[in-house]
Amino acid sequence: MKKYLVEFIGTFFLVLTIGMTVIDPGAGNLAPLAIGAALMIMVYAGGHVSGGHYNPAVTIAVWLRGRCGTSDVPFYLIAQVLGASAAALLALQFKGCPTLTAGHPNVGHALIAEFVGTFALCYVVLNVATAKATAGNSNYGLAIGFTVTTMAFALGGISGGAFNPAVAVGITVMGLAAKANLWLYLVGNFAAAIVAALTFKFINPEDK
Amino acid sequence: MKKYLVEFIGTFFLVLTIGMTVIDPGAGNLAPLAIGAALMIMVYAGGHVSGGHYNPAVTIAVWLRGRCGTSDVPFYLIAQVLGASAAALLALQFKGCPTLTAGHPNVGHALIAEFVGTFALCYVVLNVATAKATAGNSNYGLAIGFTVTTMAFALGGISGGAFNPAVAVGITVMGLAAKANLWLYLVGNFAAAIVAALTFKFINPEDK
Amino acid sequence: MKKYLVEFIGTFFLVLTIGMTVIDPGAGNLAPLAIGAALMIMVYAGGHVSGGHYNPAVTIAVWLRGRCGTSDVPFYLIAQVLGASAAALLALQFKGCPTLTAGHPNVGHALIAEFVGTFALCYVVLNVATAKATAGNSNYGLAIGFTVTTMAFALGGISGGAFNPAVAVGITVMGLAAKANLWLYLVGNFAAAIVAALTFKFINPEDK
Amino acid sequence: MKKYLVEFIGTFFLVLTIGMTVIDPGAGNLAPLAIGAALMIMVYAGGHVSGGHYNPAVTIAVWLRGRCGTSDVPFYLIAQVLGASAAALLALQFKGCPTLTAGHPNVGHALIAEFVGTFALCYVVLNVATAKATAGNSNYGLAIGFTVTTMAFALGGISGGAFNPAVAVGITVMGLAAKANLWLYLVGNFAAAIVAALTFKFINPEDK
Repeated sequence: MKKYLVEFIGTFFLVLTIGMTVIDPGAGNLAPLAIGAALMIMVYAGGHVSGGHYNPAVTIAVWLRGRCGTSDVPFYLIAQVLGASAAALLALQFKGCPTLTAGHPNVGHALIAEFVGTFALCYVVLNVATAKATAGNSNYGLAIGFTVTTMAFALGGISGGAFNPAVAVGITVMGLAAKANLWLYLVGNFAAAIVAALTFKFINPEDK
Repeated sequence: MKKYLVEFIGTFFLVLTIGMTVIDPGAGNLAPLAIGAALMIMVYAGGHVSGGHYNPAVTIAVWLRGRCGTSDVPFYLIAQVLGASAAALLALQFKGCPTLTAGHPNVGHALIAEFVGTFALCYVVLNVATAKATAGNSNYGLAIGFTVTTMAFALGGISGGAFNPAVAVGITVMGLAAKANLWLYLVGNFAAAIVAALTFKFINPEDK
Repeated sequence: MKKYLVEFIGTFFLVLTIGMTVIDPGAGNLAPLAIGAALMIMVYAGGHVSGGHYNPAVTIAVWLRGRCGTSDVPFYLIAQVLGASAAALLALQFKGCPTLTAGHPNVGHALIAEFVGTFALCYVVLNVATAKATAGNSNYGLAIGFTVTTMAFALGGISGGAFNPAVAVGITVMGLAAKANLWLYLVGNFAAAIVAALTFKFINPEDK
Repeated sequence: MKKYLVEFIGTFFLVLTIGMTVIDPGAGNLAPLAIGAALMIMVYAGGHVSGGHYNPAVTIAVWLRGRCGTSDVPFYLIAQVLGASAAALLALQFKGCPTLTAGHPNVGHALIAEFVGTFALCYVVLNVATAKATAGNSNYGLAIGFTVTTMAFALGGISGGAFNPAVAVGITVMGLAAKANLWLYLVGNFAAAIVAALTFKFINPEDK
């Protein structure tokens, strides 16, 4: 139960920061910095309890790598989606609906961008937070948070930059992404989680 | 005595940075970065002496968690408020009174924003700086400082973004917040400290 | 093989971030932050497998310092150039060719700037990631990534700010640098790698 | 000799970054970030050899605290001033003289600002890099570098934001500060170093 609460809290603050810094008047071109920092602080705060995923794609990648119990997976995903939804509703309460309607991204580009960005995120998480060779480091949150910052700067303009199915739900609730495009995030993000887990196993062959 | 001096110094630099980067001409949209960095450096510099609170709400949360002596609490709070006031006066000396008069925030929204932001701060502090499971890490200051950065980006527009009763006093002295709204910060911040301490105990049940 | 894959992935994300944040509409004056962060996250993710070079000049410097096998060097360089080229093609696919044609830098200034910036990068890498006296630290990625951020802010306007022959190939493929100037990066970067390795040996005489 | 070379290199890159990001066209309001990052990376790269001062005021503070040999002090100061001067000349070569002539700061305000900012820097350095209670941490460079970032955001508009006599020489050579004001930096910075060393001894009484 405490693990699910931690996942709820972390995803709540991640999506709240997204809503408050992206919906006008937000943090302008500094939004990716605020969003990555939100993830970083919650990874540092909750990692010792739940692993600090706050992202269904990360949960799947960590589960495939063997560091998340199978019975925990559905509850992690539920807690993450609930946290994202609660945050989206609070952001709407604070700011009203965004006047900017959700754009129509190029679907092929958006799918690739979500795959590429989520691959980077899951690849970094697995290597800095679950590899034996990097155990005990103090940089895991910095690396994970700034992966979202980097990918949001690089790919946010192509796909909206979710890299996280719970975030995709949150930005859909807030009207920052179109309902019709939700599948795109789910497919791109979960596919990337699987490829990242396989890549991790290939480059860390002795690390079971 | 040395602990109170450290709390005075840290809160002084936190509030000085707030005044100098928020009163025009300040650091513009980079102010949350400078303010979070001010907290980060003072947490790293003074944490080994006083715990590096620089915030009455954090002191209450750490006391409830059992990591701050009861006899220290009033002196910590006095040192923090004195440091904040001294910094506010120096900032006024450097810059003159702000031409922008304090806004009239939506009281309900501001209360929620102060509660939410201070909860994040106390939750992060307790988990990265007082939990046995994260002892010895080098990231506590980074996590704590960037919590203020993140919450200031996300919620600064709603409530002014104090998340700290001593900061609330400081911004009131500087004319960045209205005297009539001081209660709002005190209520929101201390309530959040209590809830964060309870949350910490729930998610770290073996950590006494 | 796994080491070369890690070098490919890291250089891919570094150059992808460069292309996506520099080609209009990019990340504006925040591009150096995003680019340094891309390097930082990949150093933290892949350092335990390949050393996390993502830069032929760094590979040469680390080889001269005695921390990269001679037989690995050509494959590292091939993987880095392939990763950079793949990323450049993807960025062009996402954004189209940059409308801004490559500038004509002052050749003498650009050579010095590339030498100076690459010296800083190799000097930092050798000291934070290969010196016995700093072994086990958690800050190596932060220091290495922010060296690129700093040097890009300082010298990007003089030379384009590659500090990395693989990046030079990438920005040439993307049309951000002129083909006729590629030699300039190769000469400046590799010369700096040699001088940095000699400097490292001079200041760490007992560290073989 | 190797220690002096490290001090020369670090101060060179610090002042080069100042010149290149402050003289137009520079890094705009991001200059304090680039400058603090320059200090951070050089502290991480050279700390294990020379202590990574790059600042005569820091050298004096560390000497008063008993962590710098008396015979080293003059050579540290010479190396720092030479590094700053070499960087200033290179920046002028790259950019030409600044078109903005040095301002006429309010002398009283500037003295206080230099004292306050340098006190913060020396106080942070002594506590994160020389205190027994924080030995072995990985955050010393982050804390030290971001102290300069924070103080430059807060106080740069009052005094120019040197907090470092070698930097004061460098910005005077580059024409960013008036020759007639050089004394102001020397007095403010060295006075702060002394007060910071005394403060350190008071709050760390058992740490000899």
